[in-house]
Amino acid sequence: MSNKNRFPADKRIYYFGSKLTEGHQAMSELLGGKGANLAEMTSIGLPVPAGFTITTACCADYNKAGGKLPGGLSKDIESNMARLEKETGKQFGDTQNPLLVSVRSGAAVSMPGMMDTVLNLGLTDKSVAGLSEQTGNARFALDAYRRLINMFGDVVMGVDHHLFEAEFELIKKRNKVTQDTDLGETGLRQLMEAYKAVYKKHTGESFPQDPYKQLEKSVEAVFKSWNIPRAIAYRKINDIRGLLGTAVNIQSMVFGNMGEDSGTGVAFTRDPSTGKNEFFGEFLINAQGEDVVAGIRTPEPVVKMKKWRPDIYQQLLGVKKTLEGHYREMQDIEFTIERGKLYMLQTRTGKRTGAAAVKIAVDMVAEKRISQKTALLRVPANDLNQLLLPSFDAKAKRTVLTKGLPASPGAASGYPVFTADEAVARTEKGDSVILVRRETSPEDIHGMHAAAGILTSTGGSTSHAAVVARGWGKCCVAGAGDLVIDSKRHIIKIDDRKISVNDIISIDGTSGEVMLGDVAKQAPTFTKEFRVLMKWADNTRKMVVRTNADTPEDSKIARNFGAEGIGLCRTEHMFFGDKRIMAMREMILAEKADDRKVALRTLRPFQRRDFEGIFKSMNGLPVTVRLLDPPLHEFLPTDEKSQRLLARAMKVKLDHIVRRVNQLHEVNPMLGHRGCRLTVTYPEILEMQVTAIVEATINCKRKRIDAQPEIMIPLVGIDNELIMLRELAEKTIERVKRRKKFQGQLNIPIGTMIEIPRAALTADKVAEHADFFSFGTNDLTQMTLGYSRDDIGSFLPDYLEKNILETDPFLTLDASGVGQLVEMAVKKGRDVKRKLKCGICGEHGGDPESIVFFQSVQLDYISCSPFRVPIARLAAAQATLKNQQLALFN
Amino acid sequence: MSNKNRFPADKRIYYFGSKLTEGHQAMSELLGGKGANLAEMTSIGLPVPAGFTITTACCADYNKAGGKLPGGLSKDIESNMARLEKETGKQFGDTQNPLLVSVRSGAAVSMPGMMDTVLNLGLTDKSVAGLSEQTGNARFALDAYRRLINMFGDVVMGVDHHLFEAEFELIKKRNKVTQDTDLGETGLRQLMEAYKAVYKKHTGESFPQDPYKQLEKSVEAVFKSWNIPRAIAYRKINDIRGLLGTAVNIQSMVFGNMGEDSGTGVAFTRDPSTGKNEFFGEFLINAQGEDVVAGIRTPEPVVKMKKWRPDIYQQLLGVKKTLEGHYREMQDIEFTIERGKLYMLQTRTGKRTGAAAVKIAVDMVAEKRISQKTALLRVPANDLNQLLLPSFDAKAKRTVLTKGLPASPGAASGYPVFTADEAVARTEKGDSVILVRRETSPEDIHGMHAAAGILTSTGGSTSHAAVVARGWGKCCVAGAGDLVIDSKRHIIKIDDRKISVNDIISIDGTSGEVMLGDVAKQAPTFTKEFRVLMKWADNTRKMVVRTNADTPEDSKIARNFGAEGIGLCRTEHMFFGDKRIMAMREMILAEKADDRKVALRTLRPFQRRDFEGIFKSMNGLPVTVRLLDPPLHEFLPTDEKSQRLLARAMKVKLDHIVRRVNQLHEVNPMLGHRGCRLTVTYPEILEMQVTAIVEATINCKRKRIDAQPEIMIPLVGIDNELIMLRELAEKTIERVKRRKKFQGQLNIPIGTMIEIPRAALTADKVAEHADFFSFGTNDLTQMTLGYSRDDIGSFLPDYLEKNILETDPFLTLDASGVGQLVEMAVKKGRDVKRKLKCGICGEHGGDPESIVFFQSVQLDYISCSPFRVPIARLAAAQATLKNQQLALFN
Repeated sequence: MSNKNRFPADKRIYYFGSKLTEGHQAMSELLGGKGANLAEMTSIGLPVPAGFTITTACCADYNKAGGKLPGGLSKDIESNMARLEKETGKQFGDTQNPLLVSVRSGAAVSMPGMMDTVLNLGLTDKSVAGLSEQTGNARFALDAYRRLINMFGDVVMGVDHHLFEAEFELIKKRNKVTQDTDLGETGLRQLMEAYKAVYKKHTGESFPQDPYKQLEKSVEAVFKSWNIPRAIAYRKINDIRGLLGTAVNIQSMVFGNMGEDSGTGVAFTRDPSTGKNEFFGEFLINAQGEDVVAGIRTPEPVVKMKKWRPDIYQQLLGVKKTLEGHYREMQDIEFTIERGKLYMLQTRTGKRTGAAAVKIAVDMVAEKRISQKTALLRVPANDLNQLLLPSFDAKAKRTVLTKGLPASPGAASGYPVFTADEAVARTEKGDSVILVRRETSPEDIHGMHAAAGILTSTGGSTSHAAVVARGWGKCCVAGAGDLVIDSKRHIIKIDDRKISVNDIISIDGTSGEVMLGDVAKQAPTFTKEFRVLMKWADNTRKMVVRTNADTPEDSKIARNFGAEGIGLCRTEHMFFGDKRIMAMREMILAEKADDRKVALRTLRPFQRRDFEGIFKSMNGLPVTVRLLDPPLHEFLPTDEKSQRLLARAMKVKLDHIVRRVNQLHEVNPMLGHRGCRLTVTYPEILEMQVTAIVEATINCKRKRIDAQPEIMIPLVGIDNELIMLRELAEKTIERVKRRKKFQGQLNIPIGTMIEIPRAALTADKVAEHADFFSFGTNDLTQMTLGYSRDDIGSFLPDYLEKNILETDPFLTLDASGVGQLVEMAVKKGRDVKRKLKCGICGEHGGDPESIVFFQSVQLDYISCSPFRVPIARLAAAQATLKNQQLALFN
Repeated sequence: MSNKNRFPADKRIYYFGSKLTEGHQAMSELLGGKGANLAEMTSIGLPVPAGFTITTACCADYNKAGGKLPGGLSKDIESNMARLEKETGKQFGDTQNPLLVSVRSGAAVSMPGMMDTVLNLGLTDKSVAGLSEQTGNARFALDAYRRLINMFGDVVMGVDHHLFEAEFELIKKRNKVTQDTDLGETGLRQLMEAYKAVYKKHTGESFPQDPYKQLEKSVEAVFKSWNIPRAIAYRKINDIRGLLGTAVNIQSMVFGNMGEDSGTGVAFTRDPSTGKNEFFGEFLINAQGEDVVAGIRTPEPVVKMKKWRPDIYQQLLGVKKTLEGHYREMQDIEFTIERGKLYMLQTRTGKRTGAAAVKIAVDMVAEKRISQKTALLRVPANDLNQLLLPSFDAKAKRTVLTKGLPASPGAASGYPVFTADEAVARTEKGDSVILVRRETSPEDIHGMHAAAGILTSTGGSTSHAAVVARGWGKCCVAGAGDLVIDSKRHIIKIDDRKISVNDIISIDGTSGEVMLGDVAKQAPTFTKEFRVLMKWADNTRKMVVRTNADTPEDSKIARNFGAEGIGLCRTEHMFFGDKRIMAMREMILAEKADDRKVALRTLRPFQRRDFEGIFKSMNGLPVTVRLLDPPLHEFLPTDEKSQRLLARAMKVKLDHIVRRVNQLHEVNPMLGHRGCRLTVTYPEILEMQVTAIVEATINCKRKRIDAQPEIMIPLVGIDNELIMLRELAEKTIERVKRRKKFQGQLNIPIGTMIEIPRAALTADKVAEHADFFSFGTNDLTQMTLGYSRDDIGSFLPDYLEKNILETDPFLTLDASGVGQLVEMAVKKGRDVKRKLKCGICGEHGGDPESIVFFQSVQLDYISCSPFRVPIARLAAAQATLKNQQLALFN
């Protein structure tokens, strides 16, 4: 399919209908995902109510002009309405056979619940009679009209929804009914008048009786909704950037609430939680689509349709087949049945959990729908995170309180909170929380994001809570109907049991169980499909994936996740053990090299044993040990009490310690006396560490463990530093070999971290003395951008808010700045040493977007935290494929 | 003169004499300055005692081999000795007519007093008789021998000089004489035996009777002396690098102490203090050269020679003419008169004060000896510093204590200290000190360097103290004979007056006066020659020289020194005034933008007046105003007492202030919330500052003052920052223009500092929105090298000591690292904007070596502190010339 548009660039409206369809699927940037797919569905013969789409470019023009509709747009709308009238045989605002339309937003990227919708447009005091006549159902017509007044008032004119609700309650009471649907024609007429009065009171004008005025105002409201705070927040949280705006879809109405032969539903062509190839969804009889999505009534599973209308169920299975055959992707659809006739209202790529993404991708390869490469690119690497999360331990005792729908898999425990703000506040205090709501709405986004899990008492697995939670891979149990939420008293009641804000609850997103207490969790098991996908990834990727690990335990976890070595083994954490920290402090407080050496001798056996453990865990794989990096003052206590304790333990005066701590204090420790600068001034530290590494290596080798250490000298900025320290390390290696009478070869490579801009700039000089480069992109980012990671919080939010930065540069590598230095260093280094091994061991090593960059500059390996290893493996494969695609274009 | 050597590369010895002279002046790298010039003087017909030079390469080989003489060297020495014997007609170690030689060190760069010398080599128990016979002067021969034993024992064998001295005193007492020279032949024989006994006792061996053994050991001693600590220290202080080692000069002896028709002296062909074209120097009758240099006897001015031996004085004036004609440079010579015959022992370029350097250079152009370009290159730009130093106010009251020789010009006041260590210690405490010594020696170097001035009671203007002080441009009064120094009691006595360590004294290096108290000083006046040289510099240089100034006063000083605008006007210092700091603090403590604006409104009039003052001082010249740069917490008090005061003054609770101070605290303030990041989050600060700038500009223009402000946005790392802030600044400018009803053009350029590595890396993007780039090389150095300027003290000394760094990168730009970014940014910037104005406003803008680099990357201007402006002007001229020279070679 071509992305090319055969129409002029300033064409504002694209029509779709049985005789003419102007757009297609690949035009989602201009028509939004919904508009492009309505056109596409129409093209492939699915039953779609006709309509047209106003482009996203129009929205951009509108907002750029400070909220002014582009000139001529009204005329374009009118001519397309004329076309629609012709196709439907109805007239907009007609008193006999009125055409009703819906107005819906739709950006290029799906943002569920974020944009506003207005239905039943075209109804007026006059045309409502026409509709009543046309349908032979006065109740229906009046209900449609009051819905329009309510929706238009709320969404377009900003009248509080509750004002309408209150009138509704009043009139129900007056008419002595309890259910909305029980209200008769008279009641509905009262309601219509009451709604119009509310509308007039709060807008200062009458409800518009010109249908085109309704339409124009609705279009504007959609355009405006692009920039409301919650839409901006959603885009930020979901990292959605570079879009023009939203399109507006104007479509002839069909009604699922025209009686018991009507209905509406939403469905996925496969199970979005597990990925199973089963038609999955929910429907409501005699209801409008919004009722399903909003979770107001709890819908029926779609398979129950077999009983209700087996013909339509079969028709839907056909739609599933057509759509998957056409799109070669799992689809999320909305449909309505009007008096027994099925209409498709939307199709889009379905959101899914990480597990489902993996299963669907692998299954579709087996079904020969897509290639392995496409499958690899289909799974968002970050989503694998969900597969690596723990589930509840099957053997753990469970006190099940109730059960809801398993809306988004996972296992979460925490304190119940009842509002989004509470969720944020309590999470910031360090508590894990479960957000408990009757239903969620877009206003709750920030709280949902903060919470460990989401629990609702109404709504199904396609409700707002479920859809959003699945998108994030967050655990969610929905529609737990036994739950009575007393948010005033901050209590949940289940039967007789009361749960307070101080009781931990656990929710199981796979079983739907709600449990009391912090139920024990277990490590994840990998599915067959996961293993298959990982195998494809491993066969595709070019970069080796290592891990950052400092302990034998972490090393084992990482190896289990597929790590092919350790790219960064920090040694400083090893000094914080009980006995060690004392020796470390003695070393630091020593004023003479000899005293320092005595303290270092105490530390050496500890270090040696640490290394032996790690070498054993990584038997046969390389382990890059970084020599001591942080400034020494990090090891000293700064409060008087601890200093006093230290003084007593070390039998020195408090003064001595205070003086030394003050002496070592630094204004900018990040740019201070640390890294290799420490070993330049205190070479004995390097000697101790290298001695421990070599002793551990020899001890391992003698036990037939294939230890493969690599020595990494941190914070080199000048080739001379490396020359001096490499020489010292080599001498130390030889000395230990002699002392231990070791005859064999050790071949310990000695390399450096490239984390100071100057090291990258002079990488040709540095490379002459380095066996490998490992990019420390955390520090390189700090220095290249001049951002202290500890202090960035004071301005980063503003920078993201004001679009000065696109992303946090500590999460995703700043390719154009920091990346330029990485690329330069690789090039300069390899100009001198063609085979120079280059890797990266900063946090970016686990970030998919950064990994694409690292592949593009042809690094040999990436190293990341153990839990991100599978993500990195997949991302590295995707990076290879993406770089191949790019290469084809260049 | 060619630097080419027509001899094989491994030739170890170069002979100079009447029949054969192998070396020449341009070979100083191989032969040392002394050796090369001895050869050169011989070539041009001056009377030089014959001899030969062992190369610096030999010294390097010796030290590289861990202290082993290169094989074959002894043989080479012997064959050259044979040649010398033939030329002099004497035999080395002969019992009848012995050849005596001196052994002297001499590196490529002169290092006075640093290297060791041995005289009278070749005397043994047997040959001393021969010398006695040959000279007919037994006393002389014996005296020469005892000097040899003493010197050889001390310098070569490390026997303490005082051990010999003590014997001398004993024997003088025994022989009832007080003066050395009164000791008769018998006494001298006793002395000789006693010296030999001391020698044997402390070396464990007899004084060598083989003259070749004496020679070999002396050569080794010279080689070794290259690496003694004080030699290394001298090289470090004087920034002397890249030399192989020292050469050794072996030369036939001539004696200035052969009676009243003999003598010795040192002289400069022009006055090294003032540069006046007058033969200048000192001599001693019947003395050896060392006596003059060491300052043991106070010598006579050389003009007194006119009376003593007018013929020799005339001969010396002839030598001056020959030398200056040949070298086209002021020379520093040593000479000896042996029984009425003049010998030249050394010539070298004479050290001089900055003032003398300027005068000599300008005079020599007038004399048509050198070109203007050569003159410009002859004056070390940093030495101009001395000309800009204050002198004593002529009108100030002076209590003159005594008068010495005006050895090195300048005016210094301080507390008297008596040892070098004391000078260092007290200076570190913040006191200004005058080092007061009988005489100084190389061991005092560190104290001399630390002191504000040097005062000695013996020694002349060519004594160690004088020579070293002049080299550094430090004030020195020498040979103040009335001074009685009681270093034990820490008291100076002058007549009846006692000066303690708590009395300030002042010394005038131009008049030689020693005064009581801290005499008032006055700004320097510029000499005619200075103005001439500066004019040449201005005509030669390509870069504009601006200054860094924040006040009208500094601006005036800088303009007087030739500044052509302000390159960096910091605005933060302006906020520290009494009333201002309160408003500043209110602004910082404000929690809402509105409160912040109120505080800013208070600050604006202050800022406006500051700018008006500066614009007035710089009338017609550009003034680059940098917007607020430091993190806000720098303006807040951190101690509880001040916080309490602030709370009271602001009528808020202490808590509030403490909380806000803690909130603003940063772990790495250098990399924190500062620079343009402040104005991104608080745009109202930029609005206030730009408003003040524009108001001041308009007010000035209305008073016919040509204000030329430029707005500089600091710490830009991302083009988006500049886009946003530039837009805001432009809007503000327009708003103020409208409000002030200003009709004319303002044309205020808006540029940025390039001080974040990323800004340099993405300079093409940044340049699109910048009217100029100003390199902030202080911060750029901090971030590119990862060095916090505040914390570098903990490792920089080690880095310099271990040669990891050649110089402090905050003093001289790190051309290969930081410089690479500067070059890249200029190139990328000008690729986008061909005429982009680029300058530098870091400390490096006043450093001559860095200025050469800035010229090489074609900056438009450099900006430095007011007192460095003349230095920068000269250095910029030199940079132009040096880059032209380089261009010729490439």
